[in-house]
Amino acid sequence: MSLIIVGSLALDTIEAPAGSVADVPGGSSSYCSIAASYFTHPNLVGVVGEDFPEAVVTLFKDHQIDLAGMAIEAGKTFRWGGRYAENFDDRTTLFTHLNVFENFNPILPDAYKKAAYVLLANIHPGLQNHVLDQMDSDAFVVLDTMNLWIDTALDDLLTLMKRVDMIVINDEEAKMLTNERNYGRAAKKLQEMGPEWIIIKKGQHGALLFHQSRVFAVPGLVLDEVKDPTGAGDTFVGALIGYLAQSKDHTFDNMKLAVVFGSVLASFCVQDFSVEGISYLDESDLETRYDEFVIMSQF
Amino acid sequence: MSLIIVGSLALDTIEAPAGSVADVPGGSSSYCSIAASYFTHPNLVGVVGEDFPEAVVTLFKDHQIDLAGMAIEAGKTFRWGGRYAENFDDRTTLFTHLNVFENFNPILPDAYKKAAYVLLANIHPGLQNHVLDQMDSDAFVVLDTMNLWIDTALDDLLTLMKRVDMIVINDEEAKMLTNERNYGRAAKKLQEMGPEWIIIKKGQHGALLFHQSRVFAVPGLVLDEVKDPTGAGDTFVGALIGYLAQSKDHTFDNMKLAVVFGSVLASFCVQDFSVEGISYLDESDLETRYDEFVIMSQF
Repeated sequence: MSLIIVGSLALDTIEAPAGSVADVPGGSSSYCSIAASYFTHPNLVGVVGEDFPEAVVTLFKDHQIDLAGMAIEAGKTFRWGGRYAENFDDRTTLFTHLNVFENFNPILPDAYKKAAYVLLANIHPGLQNHVLDQMDSDAFVVLDTMNLWIDTALDDLLTLMKRVDMIVINDEEAKMLTNERNYGRAAKKLQEMGPEWIIIKKGQHGALLFHQSRVFAVPGLVLDEVKDPTGAGDTFVGALIGYLAQSKDHTFDNMKLAVVFGSVLASFCVQDFSVEGISYLDESDLETRYDEFVIMSQF
Repeated sequence: MSLIIVGSLALDTIEAPAGSVADVPGGSSSYCSIAASYFTHPNLVGVVGEDFPEAVVTLFKDHQIDLAGMAIEAGKTFRWGGRYAENFDDRTTLFTHLNVFENFNPILPDAYKKAAYVLLANIHPGLQNHVLDQMDSDAFVVLDTMNLWIDTALDDLLTLMKRVDMIVINDEEAKMLTNERNYGRAAKKLQEMGPEWIIIKKGQHGALLFHQSRVFAVPGLVLDEVKDPTGAGDTFVGALIGYLAQSKDHTFDNMKLAVVFGSVLASFCVQDFSVEGISYLDESDLETRYDEFVIMSQF
């Protein structure tokens, strides 16, 4: 029992310049778990309705994702719809139907409580705290969150930040939380809030990893076409913690590699809709893409 | 005679959150020449008025910058004033007094016409074409430009682009010139306009180097304080071509190093006003900062 991932499971409807899809696999933990599965066997905690497609369950099982913590409840699966503007400058939420996710109360199977790695994928920080309350181990905990919770559940989030080892947020969220637009000063303030490790995601500009006074910058891969950026951040953090859970090495040098593999998987994610871009990769795909990151950033 | 730099020489007045300065050395070729001087002996072509401070001439000479091409004309030196908003999101031009720069007609001393490297720092593209008309050599030519010329002198600029080996522009200018917001597609369009080498500067997010189908990304150094971003782009390209002129190696791997050293000097530039941050460095300063780039980006 190495890694548990707690987050949302959804069926998404996405409209983008490159096309549209309906009722496709979505939610933070779908992306996180599939991405992590390239490095370890993740254990997924979430809730779906009775309408959750058997094909997606099969996809999860094909990725050796343990589903003992995935509850199937009477009702419909969480559904989200979004539309991207040309150039992905803007995303409009078309609808949010929480359905069975509205009363989601993550209960860890006993076997999960001793996991060495916990990924709190993006859900309400109150629920994320509740997950940590159930843990029996001194796990390495990675926290993902979003602007909504900074706005509406700040107290819960601040409590939670004192309990986690790493926070992964985007640049706008870092500014919201710290009132700092300078990345170095924002990272220092975030460290003072609790997490020892800070990752600030910058979209196509890559990501910054901070630990103590050290910084690592991974660039974004230059891609000629982006089809669907949904889940890229979830994919990044899923691959990152999957790589960590496999390597069990928390040195700065190994964290750099975790960040690079997070970026590798995220770069595949945006090249297709939903989880399509990350569902059918093999080792050589990952190696080839890793080599592109080497050529692009090593001198 | 290795490198000539043609650009503006000015006295700047700058208001920024960290303070204000008046009549300090500015203009594209001041920054370019001082930055290049850490790698080679640049030859500067420009014009100043009779009021140009002797101290700045001494500073140039201390940097072993050849001034045979710097004309001193009756009248006042070009003056520019600018104000930066908090966080440097916005720069307001307070005044532009062209003075002797208004009728600048760059005339190359004969000895300069066989230079192997030419940096066309930011001035009107008509004048930049005029500089190339005077060259007797098959020099490696690097072009810098700005949004003003894309708006007001596009035909001259497009003619010029067919004559240069490398263009260095920022992301907004790349979008203006190509109507592409995707960096990969923008670079391809820029290559089709003439230059074999494309550099897109992204401010604090670093820069991208494109050659044929290859891409190199250098991150921006994470600095806790930026005092004055004026001239950072000029400093970047000055150091870059200075490094090239010293190494005479146009392989992709060496161009990567040129881009890194451009970034090293630019990171010093923004830490102080005017050319203060780049005027008094020694070899160990450059090595230490280079090592910071290694730690920050190598895995």
